[in-house]
Amino acid sequence: MTISTLNEHGFTAGVLPQNCPSRTVLDHVSSKWGVLVLMALTAEPTLRWSELRRTIEGVSEKMLAQTLRTLEGDGLVSRHARPVIPPHVEYSLTPRGRDLTERLVPLMDWIAANADDILAG
Amino acid sequence: MTISTLNEHGFTAGVLPQNCPSRTVLDHVSSKWGVLVLMALTAEPTLRWSELRRTIEGVSEKMLAQTLRTLEGDGLVSRHARPVIPPHVEYSLTPRGRDLTERLVPLMDWIAANADDILAG
Repeated sequence: MTISTLNEHGFTAGVLPQNCPSRTVLDHVSSKWGVLVLMALTAEPTLRWSELRRTIEGVSEKMLAQTLRTLEGDGLVSRHARPVIPPHVEYSLTPRGRDLTERLVPLMDWIAANADDILAG
Repeated sequence: MTISTLNEHGFTAGVLPQNCPSRTVLDHVSSKWGVLVLMALTAEPTLRWSELRRTIEGVSEKMLAQTLRTLEGDGLVSRHARPVIPPHVEYSLTPRGRDLTERLVPLMDWIAANADDILAG
């Protein structure tokens, strides 16, 4: 099988080789917490740290901090420290992040609509 | 913030609560190997075990077996034992799996097209 060529679905099978940059981005984006942070910021354009922590039930402080750092490093999420008293930090999607979530939302909608059937076997 | 309601993007924020079935399916589908198996079977409609193992560079036998079992259990991938000599096993997407990959491919295309820029910072 030839990889790294476009197939009939327009998908570059080249995403599969090891050490391909796409794999790294896939790891960041498709991590459970990565997906949930991106979806939370799609539902609400701006969220404070504490709101993210509450919305994404079950995430630890450490995992949330790590996930936000990764998504910020990838230019998908931006962080604003608001000069108010008491100071607080807000997170939102960057234009690149919105571009990504436009592709992520249809997949998540499908998962939400089909999850019960899938797990029912 | 109210969750479990449809937002302007049509996304059910209800996917976020812990213990929601969508989270379990998301875990299965968005695991790195899960995504790569689904994409490999999008690029090639039918693959033998050994072909999957070769295509998805870096996957261990154990992780491939576990990933295929999960995707089969979710009704996304089907397994055919071909009565030939020597016997071999083939994998392909089910109709449900194709339904899912229709939503997954645009996301993966975007990742493949943007991965270099994202990692360049």
